[in-house]
Amino acid sequence: MKAGYKVWLDNRGKAFGDGPYELLRRVDETQSLHRAAKEMGMAYSKAWRLIGAMEKRLGFPLIERQVGGLSGGGSRVTLRGKALMKRYKQFQKAVNTSVEKIYRAHFENNKLFK
Amino acid sequence: MKAGYKVWLDNRGKAFGDGPYELLRRVDETQSLHRAAKEMGMAYSKAWRLIGAMEKRLGFPLIERQVGGLSGGGSRVTLRGKALMKRYKQFQKAVNTSVEKIYRAHFENNKLFK
Repeated sequence: MKAGYKVWLDNRGKAFGDGPYELLRRVDETQSLHRAAKEMGMAYSKAWRLIGAMEKRLGFPLIERQVGGLSGGGSRVTLRGKALMKRYKQFQKAVNTSVEKIYRAHFENNKLFK
Repeated sequence: MKAGYKVWLDNRGKAFGDGPYELLRRVDETQSLHRAAKEMGMAYSKAWRLIGAMEKRLGFPLIERQVGGLSGGGSRVTLRGKALMKRYKQFQKAVNTSVEKIYRAHFENNKLFK
């Protein structure tokens, strides 16, 4: 037995979570929302809608598109998006550590699951 | 902005969580799985399957059926089920307090959402 959990940021709906984090991480890596979505087996249109919904609830842009140039354009994670990613990851790790600790305090060393 | 979260007990699948807790609470109140399910707008067959799945993953019975008698039978939460409910509620409250605290530590008093 162990604790299961899911965590996200909420502003009248999901504003950020593990899925968007993973998508942004791949955008940052590939500089392309197309490639990031493809890597996650997600339709580009769905990835685009997801980013749009998050941006609306967060109140700031996560991605900036770069049009043209030698590379033919692409997408970049904004500075604020990167700051959010960093902070969210720290938040998520702290929650993970805490939930496991609380689980042990409540469910280990008792006879409930034996 | 706030933290959203969901927590459960996991043993190769969900073994207990808020939904089962609420169902058991109502069984304990009404002494009837039929009535408990109805109050939650859940089909009796679904409630029964849910209880069965939880019991399998927990490894002990949550409900005992009482057949016949003056009251025409009914369902009771087992002692072990009640012990689980109590402990789960404490666990859940502790997680709630902790997640809110961790959220504040990571996201309040910074300029990300301003």
